[in-house]
Amino acid sequence: MLKVGIIGAGRIGKVHGESITKYVPTAVVKAIADPFLNDQTKQWAEEMGIENIYEDYKKILEDKDIDAVLVCSSTDTHSHISLEAIEAGKHVFCEKPIDHDLDRIQKVLDAVEKSSVKFQVGFNRRFDHNFRSVKKAVVEGAIGDSHIIKITSRDPEAPPAEYVKVSGGMFLDMTIHDFDMVRYLSGSEVVEVHAYGNVLVDPAIGEAGDIDTAIVTMKLENGALAVIDNSREAAYGYDQRAEVFGSKGSVSVSNDTQSTAVISSKEGVTHEKPLYFFLERYMQSFADELKEFVDAVNNDTEVPVNAMDGLKPVLIGLAAKKSLVEGRPVKLSEIM
Amino acid sequence: MLKVGIIGAGRIGKVHGESITKYVPTAVVKAIADPFLNDQTKQWAEEMGIENIYEDYKKILEDKDIDAVLVCSSTDTHSHISLEAIEAGKHVFCEKPIDHDLDRIQKVLDAVEKSSVKFQVGFNRRFDHNFRSVKKAVVEGAIGDSHIIKITSRDPEAPPAEYVKVSGGMFLDMTIHDFDMVRYLSGSEVVEVHAYGNVLVDPAIGEAGDIDTAIVTMKLENGALAVIDNSREAAYGYDQRAEVFGSKGSVSVSNDTQSTAVISSKEGVTHEKPLYFFLERYMQSFADELKEFVDAVNNDTEVPVNAMDGLKPVLIGLAAKKSLVEGRPVKLSEIM
Amino acid sequence: MLKVGIIGAGRIGKVHGESITKYVPTAVVKAIADPFLNDQTKQWAEEMGIENIYEDYKKILEDKDIDAVLVCSSTDTHSHISLEAIEAGKHVFCEKPIDHDLDRIQKVLDAVEKSSVKFQVGFNRRFDHNFRSVKKAVVEGAIGDSHIIKITSRDPEAPPAEYVKVSGGMFLDMTIHDFDMVRYLSGSEVVEVHAYGNVLVDPAIGEAGDIDTAIVTMKLENGALAVIDNSREAAYGYDQRAEVFGSKGSVSVSNDTQSTAVISSKEGVTHEKPLYFFLERYMQSFADELKEFVDAVNNDTEVPVNAMDGLKPVLIGLAAKKSLVEGRPVKLSEIM
Amino acid sequence: MLKVGIIGAGRIGKVHGESITKYVPTAVVKAIADPFLNDQTKQWAEEMGIENIYEDYKKILEDKDIDAVLVCSSTDTHSHISLEAIEAGKHVFCEKPIDHDLDRIQKVLDAVEKSSVKFQVGFNRRFDHNFRSVKKAVVEGAIGDSHIIKITSRDPEAPPAEYVKVSGGMFLDMTIHDFDMVRYLSGSEVVEVHAYGNVLVDPAIGEAGDIDTAIVTMKLENGALAVIDNSREAAYGYDQRAEVFGSKGSVSVSNDTQSTAVISSKEGVTHEKPLYFFLERYMQSFADELKEFVDAVNNDTEVPVNAMDGLKPVLIGLAAKKSLVEGRPVKLSEIM
Repeated sequence: MLKVGIIGAGRIGKVHGESITKYVPTAVVKAIADPFLNDQTKQWAEEMGIENIYEDYKKILEDKDIDAVLVCSSTDTHSHISLEAIEAGKHVFCEKPIDHDLDRIQKVLDAVEKSSVKFQVGFNRRFDHNFRSVKKAVVEGAIGDSHIIKITSRDPEAPPAEYVKVSGGMFLDMTIHDFDMVRYLSGSEVVEVHAYGNVLVDPAIGEAGDIDTAIVTMKLENGALAVIDNSREAAYGYDQRAEVFGSKGSVSVSNDTQSTAVISSKEGVTHEKPLYFFLERYMQSFADELKEFVDAVNNDTEVPVNAMDGLKPVLIGLAAKKSLVEGRPVKLSEIM
Repeated sequence: MLKVGIIGAGRIGKVHGESITKYVPTAVVKAIADPFLNDQTKQWAEEMGIENIYEDYKKILEDKDIDAVLVCSSTDTHSHISLEAIEAGKHVFCEKPIDHDLDRIQKVLDAVEKSSVKFQVGFNRRFDHNFRSVKKAVVEGAIGDSHIIKITSRDPEAPPAEYVKVSGGMFLDMTIHDFDMVRYLSGSEVVEVHAYGNVLVDPAIGEAGDIDTAIVTMKLENGALAVIDNSREAAYGYDQRAEVFGSKGSVSVSNDTQSTAVISSKEGVTHEKPLYFFLERYMQSFADELKEFVDAVNNDTEVPVNAMDGLKPVLIGLAAKKSLVEGRPVKLSEIM
Repeated sequence: MLKVGIIGAGRIGKVHGESITKYVPTAVVKAIADPFLNDQTKQWAEEMGIENIYEDYKKILEDKDIDAVLVCSSTDTHSHISLEAIEAGKHVFCEKPIDHDLDRIQKVLDAVEKSSVKFQVGFNRRFDHNFRSVKKAVVEGAIGDSHIIKITSRDPEAPPAEYVKVSGGMFLDMTIHDFDMVRYLSGSEVVEVHAYGNVLVDPAIGEAGDIDTAIVTMKLENGALAVIDNSREAAYGYDQRAEVFGSKGSVSVSNDTQSTAVISSKEGVTHEKPLYFFLERYMQSFADELKEFVDAVNNDTEVPVNAMDGLKPVLIGLAAKKSLVEGRPVKLSEIM
Repeated sequence: MLKVGIIGAGRIGKVHGESITKYVPTAVVKAIADPFLNDQTKQWAEEMGIENIYEDYKKILEDKDIDAVLVCSSTDTHSHISLEAIEAGKHVFCEKPIDHDLDRIQKVLDAVEKSSVKFQVGFNRRFDHNFRSVKKAVVEGAIGDSHIIKITSRDPEAPPAEYVKVSGGMFLDMTIHDFDMVRYLSGSEVVEVHAYGNVLVDPAIGEAGDIDTAIVTMKLENGALAVIDNSREAAYGYDQRAEVFGSKGSVSVSNDTQSTAVISSKEGVTHEKPLYFFLERYMQSFADELKEFVDAVNNDTEVPVNAMDGLKPVLIGLAAKKSLVEGRPVKLSEIM
């Protein structure tokens, strides 16, 4: 029975707390820490049967009884809390991204290397039932050699400009998941990136120095080509699709819906919209990434998403940013 | 080059005329006859390059040069014109139904039997690309032994009560196509029928002594069960589907649409409605049934839908009518 | 916090135990009783945090602290345990069917009537996300007045003949869910039933005195017609579909799949098969029926599936059986 | 009645001949010319009722009775035959591309400008029922302002290296249709292109100096972004899809199939593959482009695809080629 401490009791911290309590019988949440604890959070922790509630996350790191921590605090604290946790000998599940700064990510990589702890990054979409099916088809050879990887990733609603300003930019905030997906589905590495972007959804996003619409293309080490199209706002909901096309065919996944209902009327034959909210859409993946993290720790096996998997999408994101600014394709070797 | 005369220049007569002219290079329409010829029809005949236009169909039967006739006149004349045409040594393509009266159909069967002419009945849906695919899957064994046959057949708009009164009733007018489809897809014969029906679309249809909504179930000779559901009016258009379920799986077909377009918006994910009009929906089948008729004549091979295929659905329809009236399942042996 | 005792620790008892523990925060499982307790069950009960494990269900009925019981024992014990539980003042959630015998069901109805306890029957499919969407569309008027209700319900694998012998027959064992669905989706009552059935899947089922393939049609009080098609074995998995067709259009639901993956290759464009196992397919519905039961008790509101809803499908099933045996449509008034 | 001469009796010339004969009642094919006439072609011309068959196309240009010509000869002759035809006062329908050389295209544009003849280019896909539906949705505002245009265009089988060598390269031979589609669906002009390409299908294509797999991205004048993905060989057939995503939603089209049949079995739920052959897939569009050409001539209205529409995709293709060679995005202003 793995004893877990959660650092950060925001939305994603609670999701992980519930996932472990309900779906991971081989782990238990022993403590949670958050500097801004409110009554609602305390009540939630009680319902989950979490023994200790702290304001200071260091109490979790000091607790010898705790085996692993989930770093769910704000992005700018991910890398240094991870370093402290590794130092304290805790296994770490760290929300994405580890950091926006390559040097700080590298320090985490080095620390993991020198230690014997497990370190997993929260790229949950790799655990999603749909994307897993694509990966499975690719790995099993159903489509032969991969030639073209296509990711469509569109949010249901644009974030406020305030959020955009501190987000690191669309490529590091949103597309980072898609960069990871390209690596996951292709089983290869990105060598060059070209990005086109524009502000078409909300001028305030442009004023905040970011874009809201983009098409990013990539050359991969294995010769395949990849493309991601992004929008910060799809009127019909959260649009999350992928296709891998290869020498023997293609595999693609479309969106999940609330039900399979189809209404036929004078107006047309209408199916349901995609699930709107990312927690609803990806709930199963959040549970499964933690199951696999706990299994990796308990059985001392490889984690499914390691620290290097945390670094690479940031690299690609930085290259995409540079491509957008400089109006030219950028090699990843220019960034590292 | 088969020389063809068309008897009846109504909607279906013209459809067949165009089909032969455009799609059947081994046949030519030499004459058309209709007692109510208008200028539009004359102009149409000219455009089609049809040499002779008559008011009296007997002129076609007398023309030694004509090899085959298409009987496209009003339903009540089908059987006697067919008899005359057989007598005159013409091959006959007769629109469905041959007749509503079993004795008169039997006379046509007998005449065909004694003659050497080909006689085909216009159950065009057997030639439809969708239903052909179902038949093919069944025949090739893709679904194993057939257990359940399901037909959904709903018209886009209820006919006027005036039409209903002379139609022979929904089972002989509309469901007859579906009875034929059950025979075609199952490759077996109906032995017993049970019908539930009601007037739910238009009270005027009830006042005209008919129903507009029905579910008809059947026991087949090979042990399989079949069901047809009918409505005289589907708000979303012409609904024509079928499924055959068997020991190894099932094959089903859905509706054709004008395009594959899907619009995703705040309102939902909307596909196109089924093609609304039967001529549009079944155009390809009308052409193909004539191609096969002409081939059968030219090559002296079996016609794909023979006179017995014309008789059987009428039998089933009469049994269904009796079932509805008497509130009990009716064996076909009770009707013959 | 509702305190619940579970009577019967078989598959469905455990499903309900887990549902309450994980998804119903306003209830807790305090005790479970089963005459054939094994170590695995004991361990499961511990993991669920269930305090008391009994062999004798009467201990649960005697426990003043327990508010409600879930009757998950073998079918032949449902009615008398329900009666005892009502007598003991416990709210009852009873698995379907209450009984195969109408008199015994009536006794339960009478007892509920005289008491102040809540009594809910386990027709879980009413809570399924797909069927709920159909119901919602019907209730909201999206399809106008209902004319035709169609249910397809096919199991992935035929049961052994031993099971068939004690099952009460396909109509009471399997189709009973579909009879309930017809009532649920139509919001009306069945007045007459006609059944065709055959043994096409496994001769051993026939030798056991049952059928494995059926088409059942029904006349409803509101004039609509309904049809159910059943098979004990669909090679491609658990096939659970429904359609309601009405004056303004239709609403239909198809099967759930593990993912939306589509593989296009030389062989075709292949989607996933339906979820195979009923627990997987209907897991969400099992949780939701208990949530609503607990809510109804806690808030003293109407249960969503009451004792009369438990009686009616048995009536329809008995009528269908009689129809099959006697080869004629059977009115429900003949059975009551 | 427009009198038409066809120059070039190859595959596409015959397709156009049949289209006019069968589907365009307001035009007639009076002559056909081809330097390599064989018996089959002569027989075909007879069946079509074409009066004159020439080896030398100049005979068509000299025939005062002929109003319009279809230039269906080999690509390298398109521009100069077009010029001669314009000179002779004939309306011209010219197969795509007008030429691979910008100067020669410009000469045709100038000649058209100075003359009073109609000049239409054979971008048939604009007339395809699917792409028309996309265009209609965009024009009617169903998706708001366009943000992202996506085209998937994959051939069923790679061409032989011999063909590739004289094809002008994939971008001018195959992608040119997709460049036109981007213009058609967006209603805007391409201002910059970036291309990634590779040889993944057949090394012989690489040895012939071309690529077989590509992803091309574009910036449009109206701010929207576009992407085309191409492969010379999709194992599952001819893959022709498009999506336009905008401020109010998206519209997309998928592939046409031979039928709507779906087979469910132990192996999966299998739909049909896309129509394999371009003539089969696009037959309706070939007929409709000629209908509209004839209408434009007969009614003296604008042709739906004019000479400038013939020039622009060549420009984009040349920019894409340059981008691939130089490894950088290329502005169209660099090419003109």
